[in-house]
Amino acid sequence: MSMKALVLQSDFGLSDGAVSAMYGVANSVQPDLRIFDLTHDIPPFNIWEGSYRLLQTVAYWPAGSVFVSVVDPGVGSDRKSIVAKTTEGHYIITPDNGTITHMLEKIQEVRILDEGKNRLPNSGESYTFHGRDIYAYTGARLASEQISFHDIGPLTDKQALVTLPVTKASSDNRKLNGIIEIHDNRFGNIWTNIHSSLVKQSGIGYGDILKIAIYEGEEEIFREQVLFGHSFADAAIGEPIAYLNSLHYFSIAINQQSMAKKYNLGTGHGWRVVIESRQ
Amino acid sequence: MSMKALVLQSDFGLSDGAVSAMYGVANSVQPDLRIFDLTHDIPPFNIWEGSYRLLQTVAYWPAGSVFVSVVDPGVGSDRKSIVAKTTEGHYIITPDNGTITHMLEKIQEVRILDEGKNRLPNSGESYTFHGRDIYAYTGARLASEQISFHDIGPLTDKQALVTLPVTKASSDNRKLNGIIEIHDNRFGNIWTNIHSSLVKQSGIGYGDILKIAIYEGEEEIFREQVLFGHSFADAAIGEPIAYLNSLHYFSIAINQQSMAKKYNLGTGHGWRVVIESRQ
Amino acid sequence: MSMKALVLQSDFGLSDGAVSAMYGVANSVQPDLRIFDLTHDIPPFNIWEGSYRLLQTVAYWPAGSVFVSVVDPGVGSDRKSIVAKTTEGHYIITPDNGTITHMLEKIQEVRILDEGKNRLPNSGESYTFHGRDIYAYTGARLASEQISFHDIGPLTDKQALVTLPVTKASSDNRKLNGIIEIHDNRFGNIWTNIHSSLVKQSGIGYGDILKIAIYEGEEEIFREQVLFGHSFADAAIGEPIAYLNSLHYFSIAINQQSMAKKYNLGTGHGWRVVIESRQ
Repeated sequence: MSMKALVLQSDFGLSDGAVSAMYGVANSVQPDLRIFDLTHDIPPFNIWEGSYRLLQTVAYWPAGSVFVSVVDPGVGSDRKSIVAKTTEGHYIITPDNGTITHMLEKIQEVRILDEGKNRLPNSGESYTFHGRDIYAYTGARLASEQISFHDIGPLTDKQALVTLPVTKASSDNRKLNGIIEIHDNRFGNIWTNIHSSLVKQSGIGYGDILKIAIYEGEEEIFREQVLFGHSFADAAIGEPIAYLNSLHYFSIAINQQSMAKKYNLGTGHGWRVVIESRQ
Repeated sequence: MSMKALVLQSDFGLSDGAVSAMYGVANSVQPDLRIFDLTHDIPPFNIWEGSYRLLQTVAYWPAGSVFVSVVDPGVGSDRKSIVAKTTEGHYIITPDNGTITHMLEKIQEVRILDEGKNRLPNSGESYTFHGRDIYAYTGARLASEQISFHDIGPLTDKQALVTLPVTKASSDNRKLNGIIEIHDNRFGNIWTNIHSSLVKQSGIGYGDILKIAIYEGEEEIFREQVLFGHSFADAAIGEPIAYLNSLHYFSIAINQQSMAKKYNLGTGHGWRVVIESRQ
Repeated sequence: MSMKALVLQSDFGLSDGAVSAMYGVANSVQPDLRIFDLTHDIPPFNIWEGSYRLLQTVAYWPAGSVFVSVVDPGVGSDRKSIVAKTTEGHYIITPDNGTITHMLEKIQEVRILDEGKNRLPNSGESYTFHGRDIYAYTGARLASEQISFHDIGPLTDKQALVTLPVTKASSDNRKLNGIIEIHDNRFGNIWTNIHSSLVKQSGIGYGDILKIAIYEGEEEIFREQVLFGHSFADAAIGEPIAYLNSLHYFSIAINQQSMAKKYNLGTGHGWRVVIESRQ
């Protein structure tokens, strides 16, 4: 039997028994299942961040790995549950609430999870913990091949999925326009939605000094000339540095300090980043 | 060989090497042992919360799983160590300090852990880390069936175990009386000790509007009319909702906010909850 | 095939996808690899603490276990990467930046990691996440025996490694002199660099009352007569107690309180501890 990894993400935190109950259910389904965490520290109800963390990790796992992502403010409502299959063969089980946003382009097929068939036996009285009763249970059965993708439920059109609004990066006249997509949480680095392909296309190269501005709405929060380097160590400690992050998106850091904290920066559509090559 | 899961709980946190040393010892006992965490974020010395987290999780794990729970303010004193076997076949290894309180009804047999026989070789000079030297070591040997339950030490009467004082929920005249047993840490929901069977018996049903009051000692902290619904989504965001939690106990939340923080609520015998059906 | 454990340490935290991406790479190298955490909560860039946590844990893992430790402020600079083999047969993969300091005496052989040969395929464009692209990848290949220690790169002299300055403990005239080496993070206990062998040599024994002073630079921060006991429970709650920690170093705690917080104590060469036997 080929056994796939089950990878869990949630906003449950690790300080109570919720995640361990999910692990217990998965172990009960299949005692030798390999179970891992993406993270359980998604801020409560922050679907956007849950969506991004899938983009950050899924591609690094073997094909066939089953991801369960439960950031689920609508648990107990009539929101649907889905299982999405990526073009590379990963599965993502999640409420249909926008968690799939950043992965949408890589989704090949989606099925609606039939919660009547795919539910921990005798768990019908609980309406508040689908992470345990539906998602971990179904994820473990799919990863251990007790059920197939086909058994999940009926196919649906991926265009019909709930997605969050996305801002695309753009370029004009050597100016690049994007947003702060997310932070590198621990270090406070700023990750934009401007991909390296757009950076290169605009003629920017390593060693260039860039004019970078960050706006919250119309208010300018940051404006500085910043070196575009390979990595943090290209700047002195405490100095800003522009670089491509580990997913190849344009990013800004302060070497060994938190840029997010220093400038009190947020994330999302309201946080615009404008990059201009000096020449 | 049938290999069982080893599940570790403690108040050690994950920020230093303590838990990893326990994992190392367990791996040294049996290199292919399956090791998992309940949580290591029990507040320091909070035996009550450690006890509750066992209730929250043990039943979801396969029979034979071995739980090690180390919230141990008395390490190095003459407090005993025990291994309790549940009616469903789980094992719990813990100091005899009240950690077994919430599981007591489900305990079938208890043995006193013989620390002379069951101790990591050459660890005798250390008196402060029984989690590593006694509990992880013995848990790994029991889970990997290098020793049997019988090898742990002599049987003892479960009525002789140290337990924490428990308040039972009760009903009179359509009034239900209980306490705040614990919080759902991440979300700040209030979990009481009033089981769904008592709720049903009192005639309360989904859709009812309940009068709920919470007291700290004699002081009224909260009084409101609250819908008894299936799940959080039955209330508007920011509104309170009563529901049955994932363990089937009566609970109170504010949809997408922390009720514990909003009202600065604690847990335990001093926090009384009174529920009254309006009719 | 004999499969060894891969144990990961970093300052990445667990709140985003960084650690999970490392797990994904390791799983992609070898789908049944056993992967564990030391900790990912090393304070950002704190090489000293990363070094100490290796000392705290490595010896408790089976020979052959592969440790990856990534506290790497110089990522992307010309700092080297190394793989050190201990006398007991553990491997440590880490930037050559001082992380090996506390293990140096136990290192038998060191090789410079050849980053040209040992790098995740197609990851060459990313300069900021060697934890994923070099360390997790190489650690997984070494632990699964797809490469041998010899394949890592050329041998180097262990005396040539980067190390952090170390203060040795000393004794004179029944006075013991040391520093606060590290804290027991969760509980706030003070761990010194004074080994039990030095304590015994100086004639101090359990039950002695010791004069203990702690200095920050020249300023006296703490001076008290403290019982040298076996464990915390030898002191009343709230009282200080001296003891040998789980690594057999002289330590000071306040029973069930945080000594580090109460006296606002730091760690390192600037924090001297002086112990005097009363007789």
